[in-house]
Amino acid sequence: MRLKKISGAVVRRLPIYLRVLEEAIRDGNKELMSSQELGERAGVSPALVRKDLAWFGEFGKQGVGYDVENLRAELRRILHLDRDIPIALVGVGSLGAALVRYFRRRYAADPGFHLDIVALFDADPEKQGKTIEGVLVEPPELIQERVRDLGIRMAIVAVPAEAAQSVVNALMEAGVRLLFNFAPVKLTVPEDAHIVNADLSLELQRLAYYLED
Amino acid sequence: MRLKKISGAVVRRLPIYLRVLEEAIRDGNKELMSSQELGERAGVSPALVRKDLAWFGEFGKQGVGYDVENLRAELRRILHLDRDIPIALVGVGSLGAALVRYFRRRYAADPGFHLDIVALFDADPEKQGKTIEGVLVEPPELIQERVRDLGIRMAIVAVPAEAAQSVVNALMEAGVRLLFNFAPVKLTVPEDAHIVNADLSLELQRLAYYLED
Repeated sequence: MRLKKISGAVVRRLPIYLRVLEEAIRDGNKELMSSQELGERAGVSPALVRKDLAWFGEFGKQGVGYDVENLRAELRRILHLDRDIPIALVGVGSLGAALVRYFRRRYAADPGFHLDIVALFDADPEKQGKTIEGVLVEPPELIQERVRDLGIRMAIVAVPAEAAQSVVNALMEAGVRLLFNFAPVKLTVPEDAHIVNADLSLELQRLAYYLED
Repeated sequence: MRLKKISGAVVRRLPIYLRVLEEAIRDGNKELMSSQELGERAGVSPALVRKDLAWFGEFGKQGVGYDVENLRAELRRILHLDRDIPIALVGVGSLGAALVRYFRRRYAADPGFHLDIVALFDADPEKQGKTIEGVLVEPPELIQERVRDLGIRMAIVAVPAEAAQSVVNALMEAGVRLLFNFAPVKLTVPEDAHIVNADLSLELQRLAYYLED
């Protein structure tokens, strides 16, 4: 059961904790980790680590710490990363194609990374019929069919701003509810959908604020 | 003078307000905009718009709204986007190269986008000497020299995780203080530096939390 009241800020930190645990296990630490150490490695206070994790159960033992392998398994389960998750990507321009390579290679190299791009769409007929990292690029008209057949609930949007809303509408109609959006535009989605916006230009512009005059 | 106390959350919204104003001007509205409309288009409440902007001065007139062109000019000035900002990018793998194309084309197409990638570095000798969107790829040993010569204060890091900290150290030594980091790793920087982390794998993993069981 998904606890609706857990804030986005808590959810945002869960993959960071998971990464710290994955790294610890890769480095040979399969035993215990204190909230102090977990916090330090994740860049947050030990108190926040304990508070965040307490939303999901009692994982640590006071004065002992967290069982690293057990907490990793719990976090994978909570984040649904204990199974493969099929993902569609729409828009294989230079950024979209780079994202396909980036995520497909990560999926191939890291057995703990379960996010798998399995369907690609682009409106450009020149791109249709080609493959990127072994995945076929198809016309957006096939979104409905593919999303249903492959059980896709998550999509990456890397189309130009002016095409983004209609692409998102098609994805939503097909049953996608989770979007990672790279189009520099504010999208309208149903209330039960979740969007993470990766608006790279906005991020770069906000950094400029901190330039010395 | 830079007001240190202004929170990151406020700064994060400034480029969004700026974009709304740029779009309004592009659509022919060069007159007035209420905080209601600005908020709606930016996805925040009118009260928050007024509060955010009040940090920087009195830009609106009660019952009248903001002068669109004037507020755009003020926001550009506040964000230092009233001049060209030279940027270095390190790591021109598939993601890094896509980022160069993305930002260079945006710079070329949009006179309001002043962020200009002017120097590229990669440790791979195969990539050195080539150009991407007209910018030469050079060895990381030249970071110090180029950054100084070109007055660069901002850099994009798109190298693999294990190379990121040493690249960041070289950039910091050369005087860079603003980083847009795509390497999936927590970086250590001096207190006067600012990092925006675009950790794409973490973002995608956090979306997975919202999958229905």
